[in-house]
Amino acid sequence: MQLILASASPRRRQILEMMGLSPEVRPAAGDESIPEGVAPDGVVRILSGRKAGEVASSAPSDAVVIAADTVVVLDGRILGKPKSEGEAADMLRALSGREHRVLTGLTVIGRGAEVCVCEEALVRFRELTDGEIARYIATGEPMDKAGAYGIQGRGGVFVSGITGDFYNVMGLPLCRLGLILRGMGVELI
Amino acid sequence: MQLILASASPRRRQILEMMGLSPEVRPAAGDESIPEGVAPDGVVRILSGRKAGEVASSAPSDAVVIAADTVVVLDGRILGKPKSEGEAADMLRALSGREHRVLTGLTVIGRGAEVCVCEEALVRFRELTDGEIARYIATGEPMDKAGAYGIQGRGGVFVSGITGDFYNVMGLPLCRLGLILRGMGVELI
Repeated sequence: MQLILASASPRRRQILEMMGLSPEVRPAAGDESIPEGVAPDGVVRILSGRKAGEVASSAPSDAVVIAADTVVVLDGRILGKPKSEGEAADMLRALSGREHRVLTGLTVIGRGAEVCVCEEALVRFRELTDGEIARYIATGEPMDKAGAYGIQGRGGVFVSGITGDFYNVMGLPLCRLGLILRGMGVELI
Repeated sequence: MQLILASASPRRRQILEMMGLSPEVRPAAGDESIPEGVAPDGVVRILSGRKAGEVASSAPSDAVVIAADTVVVLDGRILGKPKSEGEAADMLRALSGREHRVLTGLTVIGRGAEVCVCEEALVRFRELTDGEIARYIATGEPMDKAGAYGIQGRGGVFVSGITGDFYNVMGLPLCRLGLILRGMGVELI
C-alpha cells in the first residue's frame, strides 16, 4: 500500500512510523480560509478534507491519503498558533488550571472511499505560575504550536491529565485512523 | 542538580530527556518480592520506594533520586510481563473492549525529603480480533511489557482513550513528578 501523509507535521509522521509505516510526505499547499460561522468541529473537518482532496487529486489511484487538522478550543474559541510571545503568555494563562478541548479533523481518501471525522480529547492543565509561563516561552517551544503548548515536549509537565486518545492531542487520532483504514481493507496490525 | 534515575526503563529516561534533563541511570538491583495481601497501589509504592532507597543509600547526599514501578490492573489483579506468547494472548483477550487501570508508584528522595505516591490512569481498549492479537504478538512488542502491550508503540492503536496522565501509562507520571520536585525546590520548567 502506498500511504501518503498530506501534512508537514513531524509528529504525525512519527506516529505512523511508530506503527511500522513509511508514509510519503506530501504537504498540501492548503487554503486555510474558513467559511464564517462554522463551529470548531466543522472547521477541522473542512480543513482536513481540503488538504486530503488536494493531495489525492494528484496521487496514484491506488494510494491512501491521510490528512489531519488539529485545533485547541477554550470556551468555544479556537486558539491557533501564537503570533507573539505576549499572545503565547495570554493563551497559557487562559489554559492554566482548566480543561480545554483538542479537536482533530481526520480525512482518509483511498480504495474508492473518502472518510472524514472529527475526534475530540479533553486536556486538563494544572495551575501555572507566571514564572513557569515566562520560562516555557523562553524555551521557544510554544511559538509554532496551536494553543501555545506541546504535550509531546516540555509542555507535557503542565498536563495533569487527558480524557481521550493521546495521539489525537499530538495531532493524529491513531485508534480512529486504524478503524477507518480497516474499513478500507488495510490492517495497521 | 544531580538527577539519578533508579530504573533501566528507556521510556522513563526519554521522558526526563524530553524535559531537557540528563539523568544518570543507576538501575536498582531490586528485591521484587511483595508482602502477602497488599493491594496494587501499595505494591507499586513499596517497590518504587525500595528501588529509590537502595540507590539513594549510595548516592551523593545532594543528588535527587527518582524511582518508579508501573503495573496494569484488571479486575483487581495485577497483570505482569507475559511469560509466554500464550499468556500474552490471554492478557490481550482479557483487555479487549474493556477499561483497565495503570498504577505507577513514584518515589523521589532528595533535599532531605522522601516523597512516595501512587498515580492512577484508566486505559480503554477497543475490541481486538484474534488476528490482531496474533499479529501483534508476532511483532515481539508485548513480551517485555506489563499487560502485554506498549502504548508508546504499535499497541497504541488498540487504545481508544485514556483518562489520566499519558506519561503515567508510559511509566512516569510527569505532572506529579514536576510538583514533587517543585516541593524540593527544583523547577522542571
